[in-house]
Amino acid sequence: MNKCLSTIVILLMLFCISASFAQNKIIVYQSDFGLKDGAVSEMKGVAIGVSPDLKLYDLTHEIPNYNIWEASYRLFQTISYWPKGTVFVSVVDPGVGTSRKSVVLKTNTGQFIVTPDNGTLTLVAQAYGIAGIRQIDEVKNRRPGSGKSYTFHGRDVYSYTAARLAAGVITFAQVGPELPKQIVSIPYQRSVFENGMLKGSIDIHDVQYGNIWTNIGDGLVKRLNPKYGDLLHLKIFNKGKLVYESDVPYSETFGSVPEGKPLAYLNSLMQLSFALNMGSFADAYKIGSGSDWSIEVIKK
Amino acid sequence: MNKCLSTIVILLMLFCISASFAQNKIIVYQSDFGLKDGAVSEMKGVAIGVSPDLKLYDLTHEIPNYNIWEASYRLFQTISYWPKGTVFVSVVDPGVGTSRKSVVLKTNTGQFIVTPDNGTLTLVAQAYGIAGIRQIDEVKNRRPGSGKSYTFHGRDVYSYTAARLAAGVITFAQVGPELPKQIVSIPYQRSVFENGMLKGSIDIHDVQYGNIWTNIGDGLVKRLNPKYGDLLHLKIFNKGKLVYESDVPYSETFGSVPEGKPLAYLNSLMQLSFALNMGSFADAYKIGSGSDWSIEVIKK
Amino acid sequence: MNKCLSTIVILLMLFCISASFAQNKIIVYQSDFGLKDGAVSEMKGVAIGVSPDLKLYDLTHEIPNYNIWEASYRLFQTISYWPKGTVFVSVVDPGVGTSRKSVVLKTNTGQFIVTPDNGTLTLVAQAYGIAGIRQIDEVKNRRPGSGKSYTFHGRDVYSYTAARLAAGVITFAQVGPELPKQIVSIPYQRSVFENGMLKGSIDIHDVQYGNIWTNIGDGLVKRLNPKYGDLLHLKIFNKGKLVYESDVPYSETFGSVPEGKPLAYLNSLMQLSFALNMGSFADAYKIGSGSDWSIEVIKK
Repeated sequence: MNKCLSTIVILLMLFCISASFAQNKIIVYQSDFGLKDGAVSEMKGVAIGVSPDLKLYDLTHEIPNYNIWEASYRLFQTISYWPKGTVFVSVVDPGVGTSRKSVVLKTNTGQFIVTPDNGTLTLVAQAYGIAGIRQIDEVKNRRPGSGKSYTFHGRDVYSYTAARLAAGVITFAQVGPELPKQIVSIPYQRSVFENGMLKGSIDIHDVQYGNIWTNIGDGLVKRLNPKYGDLLHLKIFNKGKLVYESDVPYSETFGSVPEGKPLAYLNSLMQLSFALNMGSFADAYKIGSGSDWSIEVIKK
Repeated sequence: MNKCLSTIVILLMLFCISASFAQNKIIVYQSDFGLKDGAVSEMKGVAIGVSPDLKLYDLTHEIPNYNIWEASYRLFQTISYWPKGTVFVSVVDPGVGTSRKSVVLKTNTGQFIVTPDNGTLTLVAQAYGIAGIRQIDEVKNRRPGSGKSYTFHGRDVYSYTAARLAAGVITFAQVGPELPKQIVSIPYQRSVFENGMLKGSIDIHDVQYGNIWTNIGDGLVKRLNPKYGDLLHLKIFNKGKLVYESDVPYSETFGSVPEGKPLAYLNSLMQLSFALNMGSFADAYKIGSGSDWSIEVIKK
Repeated sequence: MNKCLSTIVILLMLFCISASFAQNKIIVYQSDFGLKDGAVSEMKGVAIGVSPDLKLYDLTHEIPNYNIWEASYRLFQTISYWPKGTVFVSVVDPGVGTSRKSVVLKTNTGQFIVTPDNGTLTLVAQAYGIAGIRQIDEVKNRRPGSGKSYTFHGRDVYSYTAARLAAGVITFAQVGPELPKQIVSIPYQRSVFENGMLKGSIDIHDVQYGNIWTNIGDGLVKRLNPKYGDLLHLKIFNKGKLVYESDVPYSETFGSVPEGKPLAYLNSLMQLSFALNMGSFADAYKIGSGSDWSIEVIKK
C-alpha cells in the first residue's frame, strides 16, 4: 500500500514538475517587421511547431527599419521585467546575408537573447553583463527543410533556435560554439557629472507622447541635487551643434506645470527625461534620438 | 486497495481542479501606450513574474493619448464577451502622479477592472453595475523594488495587482479598502425618444471604416419603428451647432446602397450607426466623436 | 497492487493525453479590423468563453480594408508554418450580410480556415489543396444570444465556430453540410516561362521595406538560370501598360549592391522579388500589387 502510494506520489510529482517546467517556456519577440504582413506569424508558427507548450509574447515589431540602436535600447529597457530563463528574439538585421554572426547571449541576470551580433546587444551587455555567448550552429539549429531559403533568418534560425532553447529541446551549450565575451558595440556618449554639469545622450523618445529620455540615471541626477520646482538649464545638441536651450522645472508630476509647458522628470527607468505637459517635446522642438543627440544640464 | 484508489482519485481531482483554475487566469490589457516601445511588454513581464500560468491578452493599446472617454467606451464594448473572472487593466492616465485613486472595480457581471478612477469606469459602471470597488493598497500591492519609480503605475501597481488578483495570490478583498459604490463619471448626452425624435450622442467611430456609432440602442430604435428601406432624417451637431443633415435609408446590409452612399444600420452592439458603403462617413463629412457630438433622427 | 498501479497509470495516461490535446488548441486570427477598437478582443473573448484552454495568435489585423486578395495572400504565405490542426479565422468581408457563404475549409496539409467564401481562399486552395469544405450551420454554430446581431459574423459565427472546432467541442463534420470542393476564386496572371522570358504578377509588397514580391517561384527562375551578379531586364506593367523598365543584378544579399540601388533576389518564400538596398522599391517607382500588376523578366 505504501509502495503504491509512494509510486503515485512520485508519478504525480514528476508530472507536476514537468508541467511546471512547461509553464515557463517563454519567448518574447522584437523586430522591425511591423504587423502588416505574415513575417511575425511565420516566426511564431515555427516556434509552436517545435513545442505547442511555448508561450509567445511580443516586445515590439515597430522598431524603425534597420535601427539597431533602438533595438538595443528596447531590450535594455524591458528584459529585467521578465523572469529568468525568458528567451528574447530580436531581428533587426540590415546585414542579413552578410558575415555578421548569429548568436545567443545569456545575461548575468539569466535572460537569453537570440539575435544577429550587429550592435543589438550593446546596451544589454553593458547593463546586465554577459554570462555566456554562443554562435548558433546553423547546421543543427536551423528549421528542417529551410536550407534553400537564405533571407529569413528570423524564422528559420532565430525563432527555431529560440523555441528549441525555451522548450528545453537543446541546452544553451547545444546552441553552438562558445565565443569570447565580446559583442559588436555601438559607440555613444556615456553619462557623466563634471564641474556641476550633467552630460549625456538622448537614448530614445517615449514615442507615444514625444518625451525625451536621456541616459542620465538618478544616481548622477542626485549629484546635481535638484529639488522639485528647481529650474534646470538644458542644452540639446545634434552632432555637437546647439539646437535647443531653455530653463525647465524639475518636477514630480506632469500636472505641476501648465499644459504645453516643458518639465524635467525621472522616467520609469529612473533616468532624466524631458516632456511637455499634455504635448510632445520632441515634435515641438524637433528633437531626435540616438548617438548623434547629446545634452548638457546645470542647476540654475 | 479501495483506500489507495480513492486517495489517487482525490489527488488527481485536486490536481485537475488546480489545473482547471490555472486555465482561467486571464488578464486583458488596454492603454494609450501604443506598441512602438517597451511599456506594454514591461507590464506583461511583471505579470508573468507573478505567475507564469497567467494568460495575457490585449484589448487595444491605441486609445488616443489621454482619451478617457474612449478608454471607457472600449471597456464597455468588450468586457461582456469575456468570461467571468477576467481581469482588465486599463491605463489611460493623464493625471498620473496626481491624487486620482487607483482602484479595482468588480462588475455585477463578474469582471474586474484595474484602473485609475478618472472617468474610465463611466460606461462600464452604468451598463454592468458595481458589485464592489476597492482602492489599491499601494504598500502591499506594488511591485517589490519599485518604490523609487513613481511614473509607471501601469507596470508597478496596476499590472502587478491585476496579476496577483488573476492568479489568486490575493483575493478581491485583499486589493485594499472598500470604497463607496461611486466612480468619477464623465457627463454626456443620454439617448432618448421624445415626440417622434431620437436624440443621443456619437459614442465612437468604427475607426477602421469611419462608421459613426451612437448610443441609441435597438430598444429606442424600435420605438421609431423603421423598416429596411425607410428614409431617416439625420442631423449631427457639434457642441449644439448643426454640421451635417441628410436623409439616409435604414438598411440591413451595407451592400443595399450604392458604393459611397450613406446608410443607417444597427451595429454589432445593436446601436444606431451611420456609414458609407465602401467609404468613411467620418472622413467624408468631418464628424468626430465623444460627448461634444450629438444627433437627432426622425423617420420621414 | 498491480491492479491499483495499472489503474493509476491508465488514469495518468488519460490525463496526460487530455492535457496534451489541450495544448494543441490553436487559433490564428486575420482581419482588416485594425487594433484600434475592440473588435479583435471581442472575437478572442468569445473564443476563450468556449474554452479557456485555447491558445490565440494573430496573423495580422492590418489587411487593407476589403482587400480580399491580400487576405488570400497572407494565408497562403503563413499557414504552412503552423502545425496541422491549427484553425485560422480570416475576416475580410466586404459582402457581410449578402449571400456569400460562411465556410470552413480543411487543406490537404491539415490546417483549417474559417472565412467567408469570397475569394479569400483563392491561393490557399490552389497551393495546399482542399481536403474538405463545409458551410457553417449558423443555427448550431452561432454564439448563443447573438441572434439579434447580424453585422459581426467575425465574432458571433467565425470565432465561435473556430473555437468550438479548435477545442474539440465539434468535429469538422459538425461544422455543417459538406460542399463541393469549389471555392470563389480571384482571377490573376499565373507565372510562366516562355521563349526565355519569365512572366508573372506582383502578388504583394513586403510592406515594411517596400520590396516587390512576384508569384514566380525558384523552379521557374532556375529555368532562366541566372548566376549571382547577372543582370536581369525587368519590365513592370499596370493593367498592361509599361510603368517601369530597368536592368537589375540578381543578388544573394541586399548588401551586394550600393545603398539605394535595385536588385533581384529570391524572398523567404523562394519567389522572385525586387528591392532597393536600404530603400523602398515600391515607393521609389510607385509600384502597386495585386492582379492588375504584372512583370516580364529576361536575362541580358
